[in-house]
Amino acid sequence: MAKQLTKREENYSQWYNDIVIKAELAENSAVRGSMVIKPYGYAIWEKMQSVLDKMFKDTGHQNAYFPLFIPKSFFSKEADHVEGFAKECAVVTHYRLKNDEKTGKVVVDPDAKLEEELIVRPTSETIIWDTYSRWIQSYRDLPLLINQWANVVRWEMRTRLFLRTAEFLWQEGHTAHATKEEAVEEAERMINVYADFVENWLAVPVLKGVKSPNERFAGAVETYCIEAMMQDGKALQAGTSHFLGQNFAKAFDVKFLNKENKLEYVWATSWGVSTRLIGALIMSHSDDNGLVLPPKLAPIQVVIVPIYRKEEQLKAITEKVGEIIKDLKAKGITVKYDDRDTFKPGYKFTEWEMKGVPVRLAMGPRDLENGTIEVARRDTLEKEILSVTDIANKVESLLNQIQDNIYQKAIAFREANTSKADTWEEFKEKIEKGGFVWAHWDGTPETEQKIKEETKATIRLIPINGEKEEGKCIYTGKPSEQRVVFARSY
Amino acid sequence: MAKQLTKREENYSQWYNDIVIKAELAENSAVRGSMVIKPYGYAIWEKMQSVLDKMFKDTGHQNAYFPLFIPKSFFSKEADHVEGFAKECAVVTHYRLKNDEKTGKVVVDPDAKLEEELIVRPTSETIIWDTYSRWIQSYRDLPLLINQWANVVRWEMRTRLFLRTAEFLWQEGHTAHATKEEAVEEAERMINVYADFVENWLAVPVLKGVKSPNERFAGAVETYCIEAMMQDGKALQAGTSHFLGQNFAKAFDVKFLNKENKLEYVWATSWGVSTRLIGALIMSHSDDNGLVLPPKLAPIQVVIVPIYRKEEQLKAITEKVGEIIKDLKAKGITVKYDDRDTFKPGYKFTEWEMKGVPVRLAMGPRDLENGTIEVARRDTLEKEILSVTDIANKVESLLNQIQDNIYQKAIAFREANTSKADTWEEFKEKIEKGGFVWAHWDGTPETEQKIKEETKATIRLIPINGEKEEGKCIYTGKPSEQRVVFARSY
Repeated sequence: MAKQLTKREENYSQWYNDIVIKAELAENSAVRGSMVIKPYGYAIWEKMQSVLDKMFKDTGHQNAYFPLFIPKSFFSKEADHVEGFAKECAVVTHYRLKNDEKTGKVVVDPDAKLEEELIVRPTSETIIWDTYSRWIQSYRDLPLLINQWANVVRWEMRTRLFLRTAEFLWQEGHTAHATKEEAVEEAERMINVYADFVENWLAVPVLKGVKSPNERFAGAVETYCIEAMMQDGKALQAGTSHFLGQNFAKAFDVKFLNKENKLEYVWATSWGVSTRLIGALIMSHSDDNGLVLPPKLAPIQVVIVPIYRKEEQLKAITEKVGEIIKDLKAKGITVKYDDRDTFKPGYKFTEWEMKGVPVRLAMGPRDLENGTIEVARRDTLEKEILSVTDIANKVESLLNQIQDNIYQKAIAFREANTSKADTWEEFKEKIEKGGFVWAHWDGTPETEQKIKEETKATIRLIPINGEKEEGKCIYTGKPSEQRVVFARSY
Repeated sequence: MAKQLTKREENYSQWYNDIVIKAELAENSAVRGSMVIKPYGYAIWEKMQSVLDKMFKDTGHQNAYFPLFIPKSFFSKEADHVEGFAKECAVVTHYRLKNDEKTGKVVVDPDAKLEEELIVRPTSETIIWDTYSRWIQSYRDLPLLINQWANVVRWEMRTRLFLRTAEFLWQEGHTAHATKEEAVEEAERMINVYADFVENWLAVPVLKGVKSPNERFAGAVETYCIEAMMQDGKALQAGTSHFLGQNFAKAFDVKFLNKENKLEYVWATSWGVSTRLIGALIMSHSDDNGLVLPPKLAPIQVVIVPIYRKEEQLKAITEKVGEIIKDLKAKGITVKYDDRDTFKPGYKFTEWEMKGVPVRLAMGPRDLENGTIEVARRDTLEKEILSVTDIANKVESLLNQIQDNIYQKAIAFREANTSKADTWEEFKEKIEKGGFVWAHWDGTPETEQKIKEETKATIRLIPINGEKEEGKCIYTGKPSEQRVVFARSY
C-alpha cells in the first residue's frame, strides 16, 4: 500500500479521495455511482447509527420498515415532491430474466413487464404517507413518531464517495401530528438532535437555520438545516429536518377525527442524515498524513505497537501490554494490539496514522526496563514518553482532550473563514476566497438564483431568531432585515 | 380492534395471518409482495439483529455494505447460480422519469435506458466476489470474514407476511479462505451459531444437517441447514450456511498467492438468516389468543396494568408501581406501564395477550392494601396473586421459566410429531398426518423428485454424523445407509 497522500494544497478533491481509499473506508463498485463501504468505514457508520438511534428513541421515536419500491403513480400525488424527486431515479420495469436460447445469455423476459413501473425509493414520504392513511383515524393515533434505517437511490450524474453516491444509507424520520405547532416543534427538536450529534460526536461545529425557498426540500413548507464548513471553505449540509405542513396528508388523504369529533388533515415532518456524514467527518479533521477521527466515533481508539527484535522481547512486551489492554477495556476504550510479525513498526505507525486512530502506544525493551511507554496523539502528531503507571487513566483523559481539541480547531477554522460583505464587489471577492459570507439579501428566489449563477454561491441558511439588522441586498440594493449565510457548497 | 382470532384448528394459515395483523407486527403494502414491518414487529427484528450481530463479531466477522444493484452479466458467471437466482427478480432498466406533456403524468423517459440492466440483489455472492477479486491477492488477505445487513428482492408469486415476501431483510455472511478445510469449518461454525441462536433465543428447537442436491443453494457444494417444526407439522428452514467450494472464486477469478508463492483459487462460504425467523417465532409458540413471545426477544417483557375507579387510587397504585418498575429496570427487564385512561383493564389484558407480552402484572386498591400483585404468565395463561415483596426477583425467575417452558413445549411437540416410516404406504400415511418422517432414501435426486411429486414432501435434511443404519429406500427399495428427514415445508 503506497501511503503517500496527495496534499490538500495541491488538490483538495484528490486528497479527499485518496484518504477514503487509503484509509480503507470505501471504494467504487462495478455499479456506476454505487460504492462498497469497507469494514473500517462501515464500523464508523455503525457507531453513528447506534448513537443516533438512541437519541431518536430517547425522543420517543420507534423504528419500522417500509418498502424499497414505490409505485410510479405515488410520485404524481404531491406536486412539488414530483418535481424534486421523480426525476433521476432507478426504475424497475420487469420482474424476470430468462436464458436467451440463441446466445445462451441472460436477457430480460419481455413477457414479464410490470403493469406499473416501480421506483427505487429516493426518499419515502409517498409510500409512508400512503401507509399512514391506514394507520391514522383519530387523535388517539397521534403523534405517530417513526424512523426508518434504509438504503435509498438517487441517480446522480457526478458521484463522490460518501458525499454523493447513487445508492446511500440513511435514516429517515416521518412523523404525524394533530397540530401545526406540534409538527413545527418536532422539526425543530430533530434539527437540534442532529446539531447535538454532529457537534458532540463528530466534533464538527454547525450553524443552524432554515433554507431559502430555492434550497427547500421538495414538498416542505420549511426546511431546517445544519451546515458545516469543510477545510476548503465549502459548506456541507450535514442534516435536514422538514416541516411538511399538510401537503402529504392532503396528497394521500390522511385525516383524523379530532377531540371535537371533526375531521382534519394531519401535520407532518420528515428528517434525515446519511452516510454523507462520514464525508463531513473526513473533510473536517483530516490532514496530509491521513484520516483524523474523533475519539468518540473511532472504531479503534487506541492502537498498541510492540517494538522488538527477539521473540523473548515480544513475549515480555506482550505480557505487559496485556495488563494495559485489560485496564483500557475496563474503561470501555476500544484497543487493538498490532503484533503482526509481517510488518515493521514504522509501517504500522504510518498505517494507523492513515486510518486516524486517535492514540498510538508503542512499547520497546527499554520502556519495559524503565517502566515507560511512548504515547502519540493523532491530532497534533505529538509524542511523549510517559510512565506506564496509571496509563489507562492518562489515555482516557487524552482521548477526551483530542475530542475537544479537534472540535475547537474546527471552530477556529470556521471563525477564520467567516466574514461579512456589504457590497457586491466585496461579496464576490470573499466568496472567491471561500468560507461563509454573511450578507444582506432581498428575500427573493430570483436574486438568489442570479447570485448563484454569477458566483456559484447559494444561501446555506437563514438564521432562526437571528440578529436583526437593517441593510441593503448586496445584489439588488433592496432593503433587508437580517444577514443570511452564503457559501459555495458540496 | 376486533381481537377475535381465527382458531388454529379452523384455518391455520388464516390464524397466522390474523396474528401478524392483530399483534401489529406487519401488513401488506401498496406494492405487491412487499410488506410494511410495523414498529412492534421491527422491535423483534432489532433484538434479533443485535444478538446475531454480537455472535458474528464474537466469531471474528466484520460488517460491510455492498451495492443494492448487480449488473445483469454478473449472474451469467456462475452456471448454477444463474439457474437458481437470475429468474424472478426486479430489473432496473431506466434511470429517469419525466412529465408527459400531453397527459401531465409522470412517465419513464425512453432516452434514459441503461446500457446494461441492473438486477436488485436477490443475494449478493456475485457483486461481493467481484469486489473480493480486488481485495484478495495474498494469503495474508485471508481469511476474509464479512457480513452484511441488507434488504434483498426475489419476485415471489405467492407471498405471505414474513415467510415469503418479495423484499425481505436479512444478513448475509460471505467469507473467503485459503483452504477447503477452513471454509468447511466456517460453514459448520455458522450453522452452529444459527442453531444456538434459534434454540436459545427464539426457543425453537432445530434439527441440523445438510441439504440433498435438489434443495441445495444454487452455486453451493454443500448447504448446511437448520429445520424447525411449526405447529401444523410443517418444516420451516430457519437458516442456511453454504460451503461454496471454489465456484465463485473461479467465476470471478479470485486467486491468492499462497505461502509457497503459488497462485490458488480461494475457498468460499456464505450464510444467512432473514425476517422469516419472525414467522418461525410466531408459528412455534403462539396460541388461539395471539402471539406468544420468548422473553429473551420480547420488545416488552412485562406489562403492568393498574385497576382503579378513582383518581386517588390510580395515584397510589402508580406510586407503588414506580418502585416495581425501578427494580425491574435495574435487572435489565423491559417494562411498560399501561396507564392509558382511554381503555378498560379487560381491553388492555386482551391487547397485551394478543401481543404476546410474557408477563402481565395487575395491581388494584385491594392489592395495595394487602401488599399483593396479580401475576399472569402468557405461555400458560395462569394467574396468581403474589406478595409484592421481592417481586422483581420473582418476575425475573418467571421470565426464565417461560423461556424454558415454551422451548420444552416445542421440543415435546416435535417429538410427538416425529416418526419413522419403513414402507411407502406407511410413509404416505405419516406424511399426510404432518410432522417429520425419518425414512431411508436411495440417495438419488430422481427418487427425491418423485417422492415430492407424489406426496409434496421433500428431504428437509440429511443428518451429519448421523446414526448409520442399513435399510431400503421407501420408494425404490434400493439400499440406503442412513435415514433422512422428510416433511412438507414452508
